[in-house]
Amino acid sequence: MRLKVVLVEPIYEGNVGSIARVMKNFGFSDLVMVNPCLLGDFGCAMASHAKDLLEEAEIFDQMEEAIKDANLVVGSSGVKALKTDEHLRVPTLSPSKLATKLMGLNGTVALLLGREDNGLSREELRVCDMIVTVPTSQDYPIMNISHAAAVILYELSHVDEGKITLAAREDRDRFIDHLRSALVESQYYPHKLEKTMLMVKRILGRAELTDREVQTLHGVIRSLRWRVKGSGE
Amino acid sequence: MRLKVVLVEPIYEGNVGSIARVMKNFGFSDLVMVNPCLLGDFGCAMASHAKDLLEEAEIFDQMEEAIKDANLVVGSSGVKALKTDEHLRVPTLSPSKLATKLMGLNGTVALLLGREDNGLSREELRVCDMIVTVPTSQDYPIMNISHAAAVILYELSHVDEGKITLAAREDRDRFIDHLRSALVESQYYPHKLEKTMLMVKRILGRAELTDREVQTLHGVIRSLRWRVKGSGE
Repeated sequence: MRLKVVLVEPIYEGNVGSIARVMKNFGFSDLVMVNPCLLGDFGCAMASHAKDLLEEAEIFDQMEEAIKDANLVVGSSGVKALKTDEHLRVPTLSPSKLATKLMGLNGTVALLLGREDNGLSREELRVCDMIVTVPTSQDYPIMNISHAAAVILYELSHVDEGKITLAAREDRDRFIDHLRSALVESQYYPHKLEKTMLMVKRILGRAELTDREVQTLHGVIRSLRWRVKGSGE
Repeated sequence: MRLKVVLVEPIYEGNVGSIARVMKNFGFSDLVMVNPCLLGDFGCAMASHAKDLLEEAEIFDQMEEAIKDANLVVGSSGVKALKTDEHLRVPTLSPSKLATKLMGLNGTVALLLGREDNGLSREELRVCDMIVTVPTSQDYPIMNISHAAAVILYELSHVDEGKITLAAREDRDRFIDHLRSALVESQYYPHKLEKTMLMVKRILGRAELTDREVQTLHGVIRSLRWRVKGSGE
């Protein structure tokens, strides 16, 4: 498993440097940033001996480009933020459950860490296959972003690579589009369509699909679609 | 279990503030400092909504006072520092093993976090019953102290209090003194005495002794001592 840490519009250079340091502490090196703040002396000081990660970091304007090659996208979110929109943000995993889920898989996982003030937007969370949340005290659940990263990366550093190669995300998306067309065709409740698709996307996201499984699912829909067409005629 | 976080001569106020914040994130509130740096605006800013922990922190000149009421003393140390002196520093536990060990116990645990540059001294490590080390990459094992604290406190936040009340540390120390006297009396190898005592201290430290067990051990030594005296006369 290759892990990319994607910082989405980080505001404070100190946090960026701190995250680079803790990445290197736990053996990770792929740092990606979307529209980051400027990095100066303080950020470099906080990175300490992980300045190389800052220098080699990939920088993009759009999140979509930053996660293009990821087989799985995992968003991180604070406990408090999760209460607002169940459909969008659950299921959430603890860092240790995330590590267990990724054990034995092969592919690229993008871990998205949002802005220090507002986290990830609804649109950004929508793209995620899973959400990871560090369990915190109710009294003060808002963690510094580099501390949340430390805990998540600590758990992920135990994950061993395996032989199960994950399907590409675009292949999964193609399947979702296929299912959406089939549902439209079958006159599925229009007002429920998008929520259902999001739920299916989440289910498939946490199911760690392989290529072969995605192809089989396409076959299932093709078969059902043929019957729908057949019965309609 | 009550956890006290003891910062031993911290150098950077930013780290002190960060540690206060992550303590509160994980539901801990007892902060103790031994000869800390001055705390100014930056330290308070890093503490964010955990300024109350800084304000209520206990401050001492001597480490011994800071841990007086602790039943167990756990020192934290980086992986690299551990290689020098086996006798002194092992056994080391990962944060998750430490959490498992503390599960179900009742008493006060002091977690010692050392200086950012030199960690805990040999003398300070000698006082510890256990050492906790966050497993890190060999390439860059030196973590920021607040990140190490985040990982350790994350693991300890899962520990449930239990019914097994730990013996007071001074009662354990009294037993060690008792054993030392008995060994001197029995003409144990003088050049091995202190290393052996340290090893026994470590063994008892990680054995989570209760009052009753300490009393029983005293009885064992009294009995042996009587025989030693008896055979010598």
